[in-house]
Amino acid sequence: MSIQPVLIDGQWRASRQSGVFQGENPALKTALPETYPISTWADCDAALNAATSAAAELRTLPPERLGRFLDAYAAAIESQAEALVDMAHAESALARKPRLADAELPRTANQLRQAAAAAREGSWQMVTIDSKQNIRAHLAPIGPVWVFGPNNFPFAFNSVAGGDFAAAIAAGNPVIAKANTSHPGTSRLLAELAHRTATETELPAGSVQMIYRTGHADGARLVADPRTGATGYTGSREAGLTLKSAADAVGKPIYLELSSINPVVILPGALAERGEKLAEEFTGSCLMGAGQFCTNPGLVIMLAGETTETFLANVSQRFAAAPVNTMLSGRAAKALQESCQALVAAGATTLAGGAPGGGAGYSFSNTLLRTSAAHFLRKPAEMQREAFGNLSLCVVAEDVAQLLQVLAALEGNLTGCVYSHTAGQDDVVYDRLIAALRGKVGRLLNDKMPTGVAVSAAMNHGGPFPATGHPGFTAVGIPAALRRFAALHCYDNVRAHRLPAALRDQNPNGQMWRCIDGAWTQQ
Amino acid sequence: MSIQPVLIDGQWRASRQSGVFQGENPALKTALPETYPISTWADCDAALNAATSAAAELRTLPPERLGRFLDAYAAAIESQAEALVDMAHAESALARKPRLADAELPRTANQLRQAAAAAREGSWQMVTIDSKQNIRAHLAPIGPVWVFGPNNFPFAFNSVAGGDFAAAIAAGNPVIAKANTSHPGTSRLLAELAHRTATETELPAGSVQMIYRTGHADGARLVADPRTGATGYTGSREAGLTLKSAADAVGKPIYLELSSINPVVILPGALAERGEKLAEEFTGSCLMGAGQFCTNPGLVIMLAGETTETFLANVSQRFAAAPVNTMLSGRAAKALQESCQALVAAGATTLAGGAPGGGAGYSFSNTLLRTSAAHFLRKPAEMQREAFGNLSLCVVAEDVAQLLQVLAALEGNLTGCVYSHTAGQDDVVYDRLIAALRGKVGRLLNDKMPTGVAVSAAMNHGGPFPATGHPGFTAVGIPAALRRFAALHCYDNVRAHRLPAALRDQNPNGQMWRCIDGAWTQQ
Repeated sequence: MSIQPVLIDGQWRASRQSGVFQGENPALKTALPETYPISTWADCDAALNAATSAAAELRTLPPERLGRFLDAYAAAIESQAEALVDMAHAESALARKPRLADAELPRTANQLRQAAAAAREGSWQMVTIDSKQNIRAHLAPIGPVWVFGPNNFPFAFNSVAGGDFAAAIAAGNPVIAKANTSHPGTSRLLAELAHRTATETELPAGSVQMIYRTGHADGARLVADPRTGATGYTGSREAGLTLKSAADAVGKPIYLELSSINPVVILPGALAERGEKLAEEFTGSCLMGAGQFCTNPGLVIMLAGETTETFLANVSQRFAAAPVNTMLSGRAAKALQESCQALVAAGATTLAGGAPGGGAGYSFSNTLLRTSAAHFLRKPAEMQREAFGNLSLCVVAEDVAQLLQVLAALEGNLTGCVYSHTAGQDDVVYDRLIAALRGKVGRLLNDKMPTGVAVSAAMNHGGPFPATGHPGFTAVGIPAALRRFAALHCYDNVRAHRLPAALRDQNPNGQMWRCIDGAWTQQ
Repeated sequence: MSIQPVLIDGQWRASRQSGVFQGENPALKTALPETYPISTWADCDAALNAATSAAAELRTLPPERLGRFLDAYAAAIESQAEALVDMAHAESALARKPRLADAELPRTANQLRQAAAAAREGSWQMVTIDSKQNIRAHLAPIGPVWVFGPNNFPFAFNSVAGGDFAAAIAAGNPVIAKANTSHPGTSRLLAELAHRTATETELPAGSVQMIYRTGHADGARLVADPRTGATGYTGSREAGLTLKSAADAVGKPIYLELSSINPVVILPGALAERGEKLAEEFTGSCLMGAGQFCTNPGLVIMLAGETTETFLANVSQRFAAAPVNTMLSGRAAKALQESCQALVAAGATTLAGGAPGGGAGYSFSNTLLRTSAAHFLRKPAEMQREAFGNLSLCVVAEDVAQLLQVLAALEGNLTGCVYSHTAGQDDVVYDRLIAALRGKVGRLLNDKMPTGVAVSAAMNHGGPFPATGHPGFTAVGIPAALRRFAALHCYDNVRAHRLPAALRDQNPNGQMWRCIDGAWTQQ
């Protein structure tokens, strides 16, 4: 048995492992050929040492060097698109086209290029200069960043190529990637490209490293290690909270994306006006990619009435008629089944689906559940259990007051959507419910499903706990995402020639926006 | 016995208390006349309910209303300066002049006015607009903010008047102040002024509230309460970490300023060039206000040599000759004694002071300790124990390599200072040591003691753990300090008339800086 090596300190080398695992093809339920190591602390320790050296060296390089690496890596990914798509498809069962080849891979390259531009331009640092008192501050690299990527985006959130990776590198930090166990082969191919590109563009050896998996205790240890700067984690709530607890205890920043059911409120005027279209739109958003999106609309809230009953019947038919997609893994299918059972046990009734199978490989039928607002309010915690996949729970409220109570009982979420009549018929209700909903979500949408997360400077892919660990940061959107991986550095009376280039009187590139004596300027 | 009332929901009312306490005059070691309540959870609960209502109402008010309150409150404080200074002097033993009347009170009013201007101007929100995709984001009020003020600034960091209070209100949040136990009377006078001003300027009833003290369990409960938005805490490391643990467990932001020994490196060229001046400067910084500053220079690091010995002898004489100031409380004096004993027990030798007394009331002699770098490196944790007060530990390194090891062994600090030869004689060493020091501190200074914390937009009164809980935020400096008490709110495809004024196409006041399609503008 040949075990895949890990990428540490600029070398692919044998892992000091405590065990091995294999990938699996979820559509065929068969093991994939390669064998990957479960790293011991020795690997983590070696990676942390190399990253510490790299962090010191990266701080001395001009941002152009980071930009060159990120741009070249984007091109390298595009040049190997076919092999990457084949591997990701085999490991995730996500469609080659359009999903992997036409959407996710280009998005990934685009994110890397946006990050390259942000690194070069430099405005992300939020340079602030008080020229009278000669005090200057900016956001500076925080040090080695661990990235734990999720299972549902083998490219765009991959720990060695995705959004957190791009943001951490662009902010000037080395990354130690912890590959997601469900797509080790895709991560390996990406890491090979990243390593080759880092070598060609002469980044320090420990700038990009990757291990595949660790034991739980080592995971908690590495996020809290003194050498660690910060951690980006996207994944399950339980594992995330364990890491958060370890990192918080020693004040190490950890940015988590944990769980979100993304409430969608559909008001009566919208249903009366365009119920058929909304049923189609909602079905598409909920079932796409077997619903395995952080922003999947898992909770729909409506007012009781004939149009609501028509909508529910319509969506039920659509769910039953739609093809059932394969899930990302056996674990994902099992977790969805457990969540569905828990929701039904808590009192939800099944309008469509509700059973395993129906598609190729690991799958779970397209599932629509229903409950009353009164019942939801009796068991708000149980009813807000995230069912990650092609399942949504519809809550029917008797009146606006009850609908507001449901909103008030919500935990923090990434998104909240409201559909309303286009001519303003629902506006009085809208104003009342926004007061309850706005503070519960990171991104508020009108007349639009939450599943599209544009890579925009104004995006917020974040939200109050337990959607994330802190409501002030976003995981998507450049340059804002870079600010997670930075520390605020102030220079008070520091001699001019000792200042970082970004803080000198002279704008380092004529493009960086800096706030000087209260005014933002490129001068 | 008449017990002072607490300020809840716009009323001074009897506390539902579990006990009482009195203030104390630390210069006379006598109890002050008033009796203050220790609140039970009933008070906290009532305050949280009122703050929740106030938060909802504050969100609907134009920022001008916050500005009006903050400006009027600043004027009210100035109009009652004499009474405030008398009370603060009685409770803290800080000098009436210049400290309280000429420095701290004006600073407090200035902070409130800066916060008023920031609230009106609005740039703190960091509005970001992606006009092509119609995605818009800004920082919005986070909800009720608890402020736990420290003992050492009865005005400028007072929980109902200081920096955290001003920042939280300016960001649009209600504040529930937890007064510091060592100056309840000053807090009462300030809260009376704040309450009167809030009534006159028609803020919602629960916008400014204050209780004096709670039990430990209630403290942990309130920072984690679902109604709480965030907490600002300045105080002891032990109590702060208990609160942090409770808040972190449920993802409630908590901003802490815990402990810092503020390393000062004095290089040989600087000592040779201006040793006498540096001895004077250091002595002033260390002994001012009995050294009870978060940024007190508690650790001095030097290279072995004749100039260093001269400096140490000079400072020892100055420490012995300088008057011994009264400390803020018996607890503060006792804590300093314990820290001094612990440092000596760990191997430090006493060059000056080292014993209780020497001044009026609660006091501890001006104390200078010394150790070798080799010894420091054997017990880095013990040797970094914060001794809050008029005490500093000098570490003498044999060579530059050893000095770098000491820096590498440091925990996170608020500040780090380097004194070097003005003509560049120390520059080679400077470059090497900055690589070790920069990441350990929030604010780096040259040729300047750390005790002055200017209220500047570029200030960082923050730093890596355990100086604070997160290295990306500052407690001093406007507008940056406001961003702690905010959540990132994104609007995706939200209809134009439903957007907050700050996010509409039209700049709401023609002054707010907004980042539109990548360019900062006031248009």
